[in-house]
Amino acid sequence: MPAEGGHQNTASRSDPFAALDAMVRPRSVAVIGASDDATRIGGRPIAYMMNQGFAGTILPVNPNRPTVQGLPAFASVSALTQVPDVAIVAVPGEAAVQAVADLGAKGCRAAIVFTAGFAEVDEAGAAMQDRLVAAARQHRMRVLGPNCLGLFNAAVGFYPMFSTSFEQGWPIRGNIGIASQSGAYGTHLFATSRARGLGTTVCVTTGNESDVSLGEVIGWIAQAPEVEVICAYAEGIRESRQFIAALDLARRHRKPVVMMKVGRSELGGHAAKSHTASIAGDDAVTDAVMREFGVVRASTTEQMLDIAYAASRRIYPVKNTLGVITVSGGAGVLISDAAEAAGVPMPEMPAEAQAKLKGLISFSAPRNPVDCTAQAVNQTEMFEHFLEVTADAGGYQSMLVFLTQTGGSTTMAPKLRPYLKQAREKFPDRLWVLSVIASAEKVRAYEEDGYIVFEDPTRAVNAIEAMGRFGAAFAAPPPDDIVVPDVTLPATTPTEAEGKRILAAAGIPAVPEKACASVEDAVAAAESFGFPVVAKILSPDILHKSEIGGVILDLGSAEAVREAHATLLSRAAERAPGARIEGVLIAKQIKGAVEMALGVAKDPVFGPVAMVGLGGVFIEILKDVSFRRCPFGDAEAEAMIRSLKGFPLLDGARGRPKADVAALASALSALSRFAAGAGERLAGVDVNPLLVLPAGQGAFAADAVIEIEDTH
Amino acid sequence: MPAEGGHQNTASRSDPFAALDAMVRPRSVAVIGASDDATRIGGRPIAYMMNQGFAGTILPVNPNRPTVQGLPAFASVSALTQVPDVAIVAVPGEAAVQAVADLGAKGCRAAIVFTAGFAEVDEAGAAMQDRLVAAARQHRMRVLGPNCLGLFNAAVGFYPMFSTSFEQGWPIRGNIGIASQSGAYGTHLFATSRARGLGTTVCVTTGNESDVSLGEVIGWIAQAPEVEVICAYAEGIRESRQFIAALDLARRHRKPVVMMKVGRSELGGHAAKSHTASIAGDDAVTDAVMREFGVVRASTTEQMLDIAYAASRRIYPVKNTLGVITVSGGAGVLISDAAEAAGVPMPEMPAEAQAKLKGLISFSAPRNPVDCTAQAVNQTEMFEHFLEVTADAGGYQSMLVFLTQTGGSTTMAPKLRPYLKQAREKFPDRLWVLSVIASAEKVRAYEEDGYIVFEDPTRAVNAIEAMGRFGAAFAAPPPDDIVVPDVTLPATTPTEAEGKRILAAAGIPAVPEKACASVEDAVAAAESFGFPVVAKILSPDILHKSEIGGVILDLGSAEAVREAHATLLSRAAERAPGARIEGVLIAKQIKGAVEMALGVAKDPVFGPVAMVGLGGVFIEILKDVSFRRCPFGDAEAEAMIRSLKGFPLLDGARGRPKADVAALASALSALSRFAAGAGERLAGVDVNPLLVLPAGQGAFAADAVIEIEDTH
Repeated sequence: MPAEGGHQNTASRSDPFAALDAMVRPRSVAVIGASDDATRIGGRPIAYMMNQGFAGTILPVNPNRPTVQGLPAFASVSALTQVPDVAIVAVPGEAAVQAVADLGAKGCRAAIVFTAGFAEVDEAGAAMQDRLVAAARQHRMRVLGPNCLGLFNAAVGFYPMFSTSFEQGWPIRGNIGIASQSGAYGTHLFATSRARGLGTTVCVTTGNESDVSLGEVIGWIAQAPEVEVICAYAEGIRESRQFIAALDLARRHRKPVVMMKVGRSELGGHAAKSHTASIAGDDAVTDAVMREFGVVRASTTEQMLDIAYAASRRIYPVKNTLGVITVSGGAGVLISDAAEAAGVPMPEMPAEAQAKLKGLISFSAPRNPVDCTAQAVNQTEMFEHFLEVTADAGGYQSMLVFLTQTGGSTTMAPKLRPYLKQAREKFPDRLWVLSVIASAEKVRAYEEDGYIVFEDPTRAVNAIEAMGRFGAAFAAPPPDDIVVPDVTLPATTPTEAEGKRILAAAGIPAVPEKACASVEDAVAAAESFGFPVVAKILSPDILHKSEIGGVILDLGSAEAVREAHATLLSRAAERAPGARIEGVLIAKQIKGAVEMALGVAKDPVFGPVAMVGLGGVFIEILKDVSFRRCPFGDAEAEAMIRSLKGFPLLDGARGRPKADVAALASALSALSRFAAGAGERLAGVDVNPLLVLPAGQGAFAADAVIEIEDTH
Repeated sequence: MPAEGGHQNTASRSDPFAALDAMVRPRSVAVIGASDDATRIGGRPIAYMMNQGFAGTILPVNPNRPTVQGLPAFASVSALTQVPDVAIVAVPGEAAVQAVADLGAKGCRAAIVFTAGFAEVDEAGAAMQDRLVAAARQHRMRVLGPNCLGLFNAAVGFYPMFSTSFEQGWPIRGNIGIASQSGAYGTHLFATSRARGLGTTVCVTTGNESDVSLGEVIGWIAQAPEVEVICAYAEGIRESRQFIAALDLARRHRKPVVMMKVGRSELGGHAAKSHTASIAGDDAVTDAVMREFGVVRASTTEQMLDIAYAASRRIYPVKNTLGVITVSGGAGVLISDAAEAAGVPMPEMPAEAQAKLKGLISFSAPRNPVDCTAQAVNQTEMFEHFLEVTADAGGYQSMLVFLTQTGGSTTMAPKLRPYLKQAREKFPDRLWVLSVIASAEKVRAYEEDGYIVFEDPTRAVNAIEAMGRFGAAFAAPPPDDIVVPDVTLPATTPTEAEGKRILAAAGIPAVPEKACASVEDAVAAAESFGFPVVAKILSPDILHKSEIGGVILDLGSAEAVREAHATLLSRAAERAPGARIEGVLIAKQIKGAVEMALGVAKDPVFGPVAMVGLGGVFIEILKDVSFRRCPFGDAEAEAMIRSLKGFPLLDGARGRPKADVAALASALSALSRFAAGAGERLAGVDVNPLLVLPAGQGAFAADAVIEIEDTH
């Protein structure tokens, strides 16, 4: 049982979600700071729970009253006659810290702390929060908050939340769950859902996350039977382990996660910092983690709820294609534009099926979008054929039927609905979506027939696209186990040459080069690399080689290497007299390569993250880069590379030969494994440029920097 | 009076909108193919007009019935006892052509043709459409359609439209007008508007546009007193003159135009072709024309109606800035992200004002977004201060107040509303926007107080951004008169050298170069250009100069030029014996330039269109180009250049010197004037690359092609 679970040693716990079970589905709840006034923070949860028939025991704690809202009250935590599964703490400042300590001593293992004025305010508040967490930890008590609005679980009438939103109505029961760092925005989400008729049974807000994190809440929801679709709202992810475990769990349970992560902009980032005490990981990194787990990122509330609504039908097309039936050619064009922008394929109908539909209505345009014209809805038996031929012959995973106001028409809708219902029943594995303007009642009727209903066709297309992304993520094979190598880093940041040597050993080959003490060495090196080669003077005293003419390109033969060797030595003697000359560096000359930049950065939350981009303007002007958590395999590396806007440059654009993408992907994944194996001391890696030759010829680091953190 | 106006000579007409006046505000309407059955195409308009109290005379024409829906009917057009201002034609095929001829003969000057089966279907239909138009032209009669759904003008109860949409309700009266090429989508727009409570008094659909074009309808609406906001829907603009005149008129009347133009995608473009008989101009060109006139392009119906709704308040901020007051820090971050993405500045509050608000509520974060916290709505007198201090000290043109469900709360809303109303009244020139979740009734109350109300804060931000674009367009000074030069094109496509000479004369300088017959000429040319220069062998018989070593770079002195001259002549003699040698070409050597591409293309609808982009990958991979109709001035040219994603490359990115953007803009606008002056025979111009030197050093065409259409 949840609350008892807390008594065991943490390591031996069989159920990692015991604490959240106690918080979200308790048998008893104490309210510290319970108020008789149902409009006060300490009064609202009691009033809500009584109103909504919470079946557990409510234990108000108030030193000044024998009863609270008609319930017997206790003068103090120690006076409680039973140990509550969970306690709501609604007393200010230090009293909250004391309450947590008292509850822990009493044996309570979970607290929901409403109290504000902690780390979100100032240093003193942060110190007080540390004391609160220490008091809880001492008793292995878990804390939601402080500075949180609380949560609700409509399935059991449990409302430890002080939002005024319930004045406008109770949550609708349904299979959507909300996890939100922001209390006000969490409420906004559920209130908007309610206004749209969407069922959100569970909503948990995490506030300052002194203990229970957003990730832990998402994980709990991912295993909770009452929820099938997860909406998450974050300002910044503060810890990665639980977050990643939760996304993985959700994917394994085929529960789609749609997430808003704000603070993407510079302005927003600043606002986020003034709003929370968050150490927000870089937005691009969080974004990459979401993509890794098939989370669909929403940028607006509306988009989030559109996706959650569509997902609540639990049909996730694996290889999504869209078939469109429309009564308006104009809408067909609009939908095609939207599908192309969203990346949902709309394959053409087979010729035979097109001919069949043309035979039914000669003015129809049945290519896909299938414009059935108004005639099909005036002669409704035609409509039946259009629906079924398109679904059957087109084989589309998703079907969007655009009927606009016709679908809400009192004369037309009753004639059309049976055909729509029948088509869905014949093809029940398809995602059936309707775009109509109709009364709420008519919309509900279509929903009962298994349709997802949107007024706006573009929103319908975007929701369909998201279902396809979920489908693809759920169907993806689990990633290969990545073998992370043992990496022994040098004590301090190595030289470029040493860095390249380390990376080459890790599987990121450098441009072949050799320091040659004699002209014979130089010729041998050149012959081993293959011509042409570059020769450079080698001297610890000559920093800017080209200034003294110390670099000679395009050496195409042994003879040319000999000549260049002599030239370099004589130029050095003449132009840098006194410099110590160690010989000549011979390097393979790379021509016609695509210049890429690879790198590893250490994210404060997610650890080492690898980056790839095209060199030059692509990175610097267009920020055209792709990120992923380390480590990962070649397939993931190649997907990152293919996601670049500039990818066509590697793929034969502008008359170039196709580049060796496989070698590039191999170097990138090798870098990710190296970074994962290198551990905490690796501050960063920059391989820039990595020169990618035509297919089959490899990819070579021309420059590389490994940055090591000082261990002192 | 409209209908009589048609009798005059077209050239002497004082009112270009007489025909549309007759179509949209007639005193009498004949219905050809009038049906007694109110559900048939020829019956619906009559039933609708009778229901909605059309004050004019309805004249049903039906050979088989003495009365139609209780009105006396006429057996034929010739039997009509009065000449109608306009006629609805709802008879099939050839009968429609005949009806138009008969109506014209009778003296009727405007027809709304519902009949389908014309150019949208096949060649035979197109021929029939040509006959219909010819019949109308013969009598100076104007035609809306054929294949159109008709129009309505709710202000006078005129409903020549056969949509079933009115079953679900009549249009709400309001200051929005709709012009749509698609009938079904026009209806969808108005039905969606009605469902949202937006007033659309006028809606005109243009169908096949055999005569009256979308542009003409937009123009009519732009001068119609009943409409303040114009929603337009297009699949392809078929003619430019009226379209451009309409957008210009709308801007001069300060009537915002929000427009959907579908067919942006490849898929959509294909669907558009199967849907209409459109010669759609290239989407990017239409897009440029919209931008030129301050039209805001919407990509979804929802976005269009959001913008129309906000515009219906008629407050268009000129230099838009956004101040945000929020009860949720999370929403503040979300709104900041949305504002940054939309490009709406959110300047920080002055420090003094921030301190004042901090003094009121210590937990508040008043930087902007101004997070007033829940405390401000619990102590509502605080809320008053937050509203007014932010509006006053921040001086924001637009104010967004995020209250979420609090704004709909039965306990809170009545306390907050008076302060909101008061703030708006104190600052009536600001755009006041509210984001709340509230009942329709509460939303209406806020709207009566002068607020624009959105549930979703992101949609609110996007609408605010659009208002700022309208404000900027309305405030922009009229563009300078552009002097278009007289251009005499050669008879056929000129050589590259001749092309460059023509363009140089037009103000697009070429890289300085000179054909030099002697070594003295070569030295003189080099000295006149300034060093370094390039020398190239000049021979009609040597096509690939570099293959024989016929190009020498980096000539830094007169001596080097002399040496190169000798080398080139001797190489030519040795490696291309027998070639006729005309001397040496000396050209200014351009180094460190940014390579741009300029061009002119002839759009089938909008005529010559100029294009600018960064050379290489920017154009080829990223399609990073900007278009504008020719001609235009330097300011517009510079705006085009600054709109490029790659603009930072011209502006000092990557440690480069800033490029001579003024010279580039001058060349671009000169090219646009040249193209405008060159007339129909100019098929295209490509200046690629145009080399842009650092600021003050100019921009020079290195290669140029002028393509001339064969006059045969």
